[in-house]
Amino acid sequence: MTIEIYPVKGIPEATEGDDVAEMVLGGLATSELTLHDGDVVVITHKLVSKAEGAVVELDDPGPDGHRYLVEEEAASILRRRDALVIAQTRHGFVCANAGVDRSNVGAGTAILLPRDPDASAHRARRRIEQALGVRIGVVVTDTFGRAWRRGLTDVAIGVSGIPAIVDYRGTTDTHGNELIVTEVAVVDEIAAAADLVMGKATGVPAAVVRGLQLERSETSRATDLVRPAAEDMFR
Amino acid sequence: MTIEIYPVKGIPEATEGDDVAEMVLGGLATSELTLHDGDVVVITHKLVSKAEGAVVELDDPGPDGHRYLVEEEAASILRRRDALVIAQTRHGFVCANAGVDRSNVGAGTAILLPRDPDASAHRARRRIEQALGVRIGVVVTDTFGRAWRRGLTDVAIGVSGIPAIVDYRGTTDTHGNELIVTEVAVVDEIAAAADLVMGKATGVPAAVVRGLQLERSETSRATDLVRPAAEDMFR
Repeated sequence: MTIEIYPVKGIPEATEGDDVAEMVLGGLATSELTLHDGDVVVITHKLVSKAEGAVVELDDPGPDGHRYLVEEEAASILRRRDALVIAQTRHGFVCANAGVDRSNVGAGTAILLPRDPDASAHRARRRIEQALGVRIGVVVTDTFGRAWRRGLTDVAIGVSGIPAIVDYRGTTDTHGNELIVTEVAVVDEIAAAADLVMGKATGVPAAVVRGLQLERSETSRATDLVRPAAEDMFR
Repeated sequence: MTIEIYPVKGIPEATEGDDVAEMVLGGLATSELTLHDGDVVVITHKLVSKAEGAVVELDDPGPDGHRYLVEEEAASILRRRDALVIAQTRHGFVCANAGVDRSNVGAGTAILLPRDPDASAHRARRRIEQALGVRIGVVVTDTFGRAWRRGLTDVAIGVSGIPAIVDYRGTTDTHGNELIVTEVAVVDEIAAAADLVMGKATGVPAAVVRGLQLERSETSRATDLVRPAAEDMFR
């Protein structure tokens, strides 16, 4: 089992009303990439958000305007320190500034998370599958910080066609013990892997991850990754 | 830029006194993998810990014995709930049970984190580089949970030869804005990517990640990823 990760190049900047699947299909053609059954297409949420019009013109382009927008986007605030707000989004994800981002957009504007990134992933998957006659997964990503580790990594905020979590419960390790460690957040590992070719400033908003041998899932959601409040020890 | 991730197969179970680099070299030969300049060899810490003898026979193999060992390994405890302890290790990493693991070891034993995983990575890198005449990176990984997201992902606990964090400060995005999001924990993304071929129960304790275009670093450490206490909002 070898994994290959290909950048999808040649995707232009999205604007409201663009079709994400069509843009990815165009990029695949430009990149001379042919999708195979089992491939996973990873798409940065910025492409999705822009295509879906989740971009806000700030009345006040300074820190106050940004702060107001963060408060609007947040379902709850976990911590504040100076200009940094750690918040839970309406989807349930915990991240800086409730996902409001001012990078990779024009001055005075901010980009929000898609309203329903799982639905966005699902729509893109169906369109791509129908267009190319393949069975794939789609993952929509964002770049999050972590509580105790410096630096950012990409994680999944939307998924379609593959499980969000792979459960090893019931399998045994090489010693025949039942594994105590059970649930791997495989879509987050896929998101992180894809970021290795998507980078931060390179104009590559999508990637193809090939060689994963995942079961198909018609019901998985990235919101499955949200730790329920009752289990959350860090609020 | 395409990334390829290869499993390193044919590495036997390690026991105390084994040489990690020799074991990886043997696995590379068995797997018919030739290392290239710029490749990153990812090694699960369990191989390193076993080779370094960081394995403890529990006097009391039940929950009490395990709990005592976790307390011993922890530099500080962040939270406790039932049998679960979230602790900071002496290295500074925050994880469940201070890194004490009972999976993939014999009954009545537990495996600890390596004493200095950066030094372990460095030694392995030097030996492999000398043996094969290549310039590589080495990452030592463990499997951690996250505060607000279900499921586990692999992260770096040791690194040598490549940066732990890539700093995009000073670069501009495709709109010419200076990027606000700056520091990517690239070794954690590499660790997560490698886990896609190493899996949990497959007897593949190492992987090769090819195609990264990282600067070399002789000074990076995975402990660079530890968020300083002064910045930590979640204790």
